[in-house]
Amino acid sequence: MNYSVRSLININGEICPSDQAKISVFDRGFLFGDSVYEVIRTYSGKLSLWPMHYQRLCSSANKIGMTVPYSENELSAEMLKTINALQTSPNAEFFIRLIITRGCGGFTMDFSDLESCNLVIMVKELPQYPRNWYTDGVKTILASIHRTSQDTIDPSIKSGNYLNNVMAYQEAYKLGAYDAIMLNQQGEVTEATTSNIWIIKDGTIITPPLKAGILGGITRACIINLCKTQNLSFAEETISPQQLFAADECFLSSSTKELIPVIQIDQNIIGEGHPGPLTNKISQLYLNFVKNRP
Amino acid sequence: MNYSVRSLININGEICPSDQAKISVFDRGFLFGDSVYEVIRTYSGKLSLWPMHYQRLCSSANKIGMTVPYSENELSAEMLKTINALQTSPNAEFFIRLIITRGCGGFTMDFSDLESCNLVIMVKELPQYPRNWYTDGVKTILASIHRTSQDTIDPSIKSGNYLNNVMAYQEAYKLGAYDAIMLNQQGEVTEATTSNIWIIKDGTIITPPLKAGILGGITRACIINLCKTQNLSFAEETISPQQLFAADECFLSSSTKELIPVIQIDQNIIGEGHPGPLTNKISQLYLNFVKNRP
Repeated sequence: MNYSVRSLININGEICPSDQAKISVFDRGFLFGDSVYEVIRTYSGKLSLWPMHYQRLCSSANKIGMTVPYSENELSAEMLKTINALQTSPNAEFFIRLIITRGCGGFTMDFSDLESCNLVIMVKELPQYPRNWYTDGVKTILASIHRTSQDTIDPSIKSGNYLNNVMAYQEAYKLGAYDAIMLNQQGEVTEATTSNIWIIKDGTIITPPLKAGILGGITRACIINLCKTQNLSFAEETISPQQLFAADECFLSSSTKELIPVIQIDQNIIGEGHPGPLTNKISQLYLNFVKNRP
Repeated sequence: MNYSVRSLININGEICPSDQAKISVFDRGFLFGDSVYEVIRTYSGKLSLWPMHYQRLCSSANKIGMTVPYSENELSAEMLKTINALQTSPNAEFFIRLIITRGCGGFTMDFSDLESCNLVIMVKELPQYPRNWYTDGVKTILASIHRTSQDTIDPSIKSGNYLNNVMAYQEAYKLGAYDAIMLNQQGEVTEATTSNIWIIKDGTIITPPLKAGILGGITRACIINLCKTQNLSFAEETISPQQLFAADECFLSSSTKELIPVIQIDQNIIGEGHPGPLTNKISQLYLNFVKNRP
């Protein structure tokens, strides 16, 4: 961890410097990845789309038999308290990882002597992502490891069990690629390791349906909504690797990194090999939307 | 966590009381379950079958692209140092959870600013497991959640991504059952949440093959070896739920809890509804083996 990055950690309401932020080794997040989380960013210092993140956090928790013991307002207050404590320049934006674990237990999975949930809020200044990601697009790979299926560890749960994604990302990292795109066990395109994926073919904007086994991204939901309100041709449809490679355009979407054009997947050049016009149009629509909310 | 249980934690060589044992929130074990572990117990105060555990630890690490940065002897010395610091009665036995994480990183999965691995050794006195588990057998369920498959999160990796098992165990816990037995996506029996599973049918001892998607248990390997040296009829074979329910006997095997007879799965009574003669015989052979090693 590069502690020169300005960051602060809030653990159950107590704010501390990053190098002193510690959690019990009995925390089930540490022992079993038994936790749920959200990554939120700010625009103009305001938490972006927090109600949607809160709803997904509660949904993730619910799916693993946990209850989020904080209200939407309580959590936003804790995040803002931590941001304010960072005392950065007025124009700074923030990257926030909010984690709720099932709390501390014993040496085993036993549920009988569980303490209450632990809340960890990690805040840093939002990094300046390389400008060429957006202007030139990025190269990705298809991961050899498959995405976990909905009947085992449901990808719609944003949990601390992230090894599946870590291993896919590791494949990309070793090859110098920006990220890895994962297929499900049926060989269908699902998502990248921290982003949803989109293709554009013959003017239609296409993204895999939730039933492909993906996380229902907040940015994904916003883009779908924008497609509808802007009367853009849009479909949630199963995407095969062949369709992916043959796309006119391709992009990734995430809350922190927004829309990132993909220009290559393995050895396959996408479209003309540079960010396409519809990708740029949707990106602009999305940025207008998130930056100009009340 | 019931801190009245005598326990001590060793973090990177430093021993501390359980209630003070903390790890950075930037540790990838905490953030992503990006860690591997082993659970070891002692017999006569000696680490049981440690070389086999060490080999599996290295194999788990290797499969997720990590290297264990400690030798077999270095880790056993750290475990024994922690056990000795507990200062219990001379006849005490110990339960040890040894965890190696990929270390601390930043806010994301990025591999570029990773620190070195973290080693956490958690030691407590081995609990006295209820005697009736062994004399009367236990009731289990078939979990509705499936075991992760080898192409997503390989069950042969003993990692901190344990939510799949946590959720299966939670199903059992809610029903007052001892444990849950998990099927793979082909509907075949794999294992229980922290144990391997065995059935006995017409005098043959059967356990699912590694390719069913299971952890290769140390106790499992010992039992297989005992079957061979004792000329017991044995097979590694795919087991269907129907075969499981129709078994003459059934038992679970684990390093800490040894062999536990299963007398009921959901509403299905196994055999006569009490621990069977071959289960008892193998249990005795196993205990003789592990307790009388040099």
